[in-house]
Amino acid sequence: MTSKKTINFFYDVVSPYSWLAFEVMCRYRNVWDVEVKLRPAFLGGIMQKSGNKPPGLVPNKFLYMTKDLQRLAQYVDVPLSPPDDPFEAMFQKGSLAAMRFVTAVQEREKDGDRQVEQVSRELWRRIWSENKDITEPASLSEAAKKAGLSDSEIKEVLELCTTQHIKDKLINTTQEALDVGAFGLPMFMYRVNGNAEIFFGSDRFELMAHCIGEKWLGPQPHKSTSKM
Amino acid sequence: MTSKKTINFFYDVVSPYSWLAFEVMCRYRNVWDVEVKLRPAFLGGIMQKSGNKPPGLVPNKFLYMTKDLQRLAQYVDVPLSPPDDPFEAMFQKGSLAAMRFVTAVQEREKDGDRQVEQVSRELWRRIWSENKDITEPASLSEAAKKAGLSDSEIKEVLELCTTQHIKDKLINTTQEALDVGAFGLPMFMYRVNGNAEIFFGSDRFELMAHCIGEKWLGPQPHKSTSKM
Repeated sequence: MTSKKTINFFYDVVSPYSWLAFEVMCRYRNVWDVEVKLRPAFLGGIMQKSGNKPPGLVPNKFLYMTKDLQRLAQYVDVPLSPPDDPFEAMFQKGSLAAMRFVTAVQEREKDGDRQVEQVSRELWRRIWSENKDITEPASLSEAAKKAGLSDSEIKEVLELCTTQHIKDKLINTTQEALDVGAFGLPMFMYRVNGNAEIFFGSDRFELMAHCIGEKWLGPQPHKSTSKM
Repeated sequence: MTSKKTINFFYDVVSPYSWLAFEVMCRYRNVWDVEVKLRPAFLGGIMQKSGNKPPGLVPNKFLYMTKDLQRLAQYVDVPLSPPDDPFEAMFQKGSLAAMRFVTAVQEREKDGDRQVEQVSRELWRRIWSENKDITEPASLSEAAKKAGLSDSEIKEVLELCTTQHIKDKLINTTQEALDVGAFGLPMFMYRVNGNAEIFFGSDRFELMAHCIGEKWLGPQPHKSTSKM
């Protein structure tokens, strides 16, 4: 029995705002008295089933997001740099294979979530920093290798990826996100008396801190003393 | 000549996030070394011309926004309470008359912007706190009276509202917002070496503070000592 609040963090490595939120959440899991549960999900499924449209389809919104991401990435200190063709990377190539891979890494990892955290980060780095593919088995293997997985572990994960169990697990996580109200990612969710409280996007940390009775010290809490 | 940065704040009283941003901006104009220029604009025109769709049309997004607004309003300390029928209030009745009225108040006011600030606030209070109309001349007069305008001033403003000059002024402000990249409201804009820097929504204050070299002390800066 623990009295720690569990924050479920639903994300997809195809989403750049998810990366920003992920890094901030990873920093705060050591600052706030919370347990963070990483919940790899599939953004394509969430958009389709919720009836939402990608914000980048409105020209002024696309231009704004490009600038907004650049400013936020610098402020949050994440080495984000858009792929050459964001539409192709996000909507044509997509992230189904990548998120099945992350789900399989999580399924294999019995002790903590160091591997799933590191593999997710390396996949974000490929697509949202280095303009590299995240759809081919060789790309996934390379990310996993950088994340510290051994060759035999990677082989196991790649095999696991193709199983119905892993496909279903990703579908179920995505459906759980939809059921508690998702219409995009990233999304934070914790329960209060059984009811789901959700926060969408990378810009609700200050509000979430207020709601859970913790302190917001900016996106880089370990540097916060210089900010005040 | 002044070295103060001028922040243009584009808003529409039909937009609840604009109200939250407005109150925070009004508090910070006395905290940050900036000049705030209130820019009443027409959200309907911005949505139509940018090709954007109201976020509330996606069911999960509508539910989230209802909750998000309630939590934010409490945190920001603004007495926001949605109208009984938000869709009717926002999209069927709309804010064209109200924003022409605010534009006329601003046109008349030669010394500062106390009246335009107060009238805007009273209009928000009607639609987004008291479930009252903001389309009829009697409704606009009532808001202006609460804001401290005299009967003769209100009569003058109502007459001014119907002139082509005021209609054009609202169109021009709306077009200016579109030209610098608007796809919704509220929007903040300041210029750096002539180039427009824009920030959308009520959730970019911390980032904007960072970009202009000021400090973010939370939405209630005068209470900030108790927050740290």
